[in-house]
Amino acid sequence: MTQPRPSAIAFLGLGLVGGSIVRALRAGSTESPPDPALRIKAWSPGGRGPHAAAAQRLIDEAAASPEEAIDGADLVVLAAPPIETIALVDRLGGDLRSALGSATVVTDVCSTKAAVVRAAERARIRFVGGHPMAGRETAGFDASSADLFLDRPWIVVRGQGSSDEDTAMVRWLATACGARPLELDATTHDSAVAAISHLPLIASAALVEAVARGDDSDWRLQRSLAASGWEGMTRLARGDARMGAGIAATNAEALAGMLGRYRDVIEDWILALEAAERDAAALERRLEAARARLVDSPLD
Amino acid sequence: MTQPRPSAIAFLGLGLVGGSIVRALRAGSTESPPDPALRIKAWSPGGRGPHAAAAQRLIDEAAASPEEAIDGADLVVLAAPPIETIALVDRLGGDLRSALGSATVVTDVCSTKAAVVRAAERARIRFVGGHPMAGRETAGFDASSADLFLDRPWIVVRGQGSSDEDTAMVRWLATACGARPLELDATTHDSAVAAISHLPLIASAALVEAVARGDDSDWRLQRSLAASGWEGMTRLARGDARMGAGIAATNAEALAGMLGRYRDVIEDWILALEAAERDAAALERRLEAARARLVDSPLD
Repeated sequence: MTQPRPSAIAFLGLGLVGGSIVRALRAGSTESPPDPALRIKAWSPGGRGPHAAAAQRLIDEAAASPEEAIDGADLVVLAAPPIETIALVDRLGGDLRSALGSATVVTDVCSTKAAVVRAAERARIRFVGGHPMAGRETAGFDASSADLFLDRPWIVVRGQGSSDEDTAMVRWLATACGARPLELDATTHDSAVAAISHLPLIASAALVEAVARGDDSDWRLQRSLAASGWEGMTRLARGDARMGAGIAATNAEALAGMLGRYRDVIEDWILALEAAERDAAALERRLEAARARLVDSPLD
Repeated sequence: MTQPRPSAIAFLGLGLVGGSIVRALRAGSTESPPDPALRIKAWSPGGRGPHAAAAQRLIDEAAASPEEAIDGADLVVLAAPPIETIALVDRLGGDLRSALGSATVVTDVCSTKAAVVRAAERARIRFVGGHPMAGRETAGFDASSADLFLDRPWIVVRGQGSSDEDTAMVRWLATACGARPLELDATTHDSAVAAISHLPLIASAALVEAVARGDDSDWRLQRSLAASGWEGMTRLARGDARMGAGIAATNAEALAGMLGRYRDVIEDWILALEAAERDAAALERRLEAARARLVDSPLD
């Protein structure tokens, strides 16, 4: 099988992740030098990212519509939040279908996969899901950088009808951005990110809700005393609410399952604390076991 | 009332916090220049901190015993973890009582106050509790620094029998370290730190327990995908288990109360996620409300 490389890529959405992909493609890497013949068009609802990218000559055209962006593309990258991504998939199977080439591969970058893959199957498009496991606190095209994905995993999830060639195209994209492509099925992906990404987000927001629900004078005192521990544990709760809600809503089942496990562990801590004066050493063993699981993993 | 200043300070325990106090006293600040006549002795069970401090001429003597350290001191600083601090308070009312001057003020630096104040009342010593609200991930004397407390709150908690002069001595210590002394009663302090410091610690450890309780192959995959969100939310779980257990055990009631509120909020998220496909906008409003409470507080 020859390595399929796109000659024209379209981005629908161009914020932090889409912008970073464009920058990485233009910068190239040792494994994948930049391709001067590669054409890139981008569209987003507000147009800010595409116009900034065009002004910096990172893309060839800020398209006026999704139709114009995807026209002639071998690869369409949906670089939008989860709910918007699903809406775009629906449109690619509907009003945008005639502009989409029959051989064009569609991929996405959002952090939930089963719901997007299901939508792609409904839409009957050539779809291979993607999820670059990288991010930063700040969103938007201005925060994008060519090295965002360097040495990070980039999950690749085949759709029902995706061929080896379609999948190879998305693997190429990951590699061209300096990431390590890793194929998983959608369910395995979704439960893994529910555990290490979506649960931490809700745990962070819930911490704010539990503490800040006290009356205002309590909360003002607490805030004035808060140090780096509190700051670190509430950093995720400062993130974009729309993005977080989209992630939670589209991975609700796996996330609710993880939250149930988390609730049970919290409940168990409450019981352990009721016995604390009798057995502080037991609390130490428990914290030490958690620390060891985190630190001494075979992966380290 | 004249400002009481100690001419001799004894430290029992000399790790990160004790070491940083010594460094701050020796460095001085604009408000409180260093006092060349101030004598400092320190003792710790292992002796590492005191010997390192003596070698660096930060203290006058690494004492061979607690008796030797506190002999002649106007101020005794218990710079140990919570359970060890309570044990030292007990000893100051017991076998160390004869070495303790009748006018000597005892203070501590640990992050729980009601249990320590109760122990001091049992021991009938002149005690004013202290809690500098600062810390870092690394423990031990080698990690200490003169600017650890700069502009941070330093809670001061009067004991039952502490006079204004005793309290002023501890306020002096806080100010001399560049911190802002803030008087609170023990209960108010303990519920505030249960909320913004101890709850985050247990929430972090519980996150590891909930996720890493899966089988090893799940956990290995999850670890390999984990990014900055996971790292940030589990940083506290990497801390010293003995310190964490001591904090939890000595502030068990307030902490269990906060954990109960946290569990209820988590439970409420599970219910919200079950309704997610019907109302993703509700999740967004909820996350946005938490973000606003965190970010748009009148304090900012």
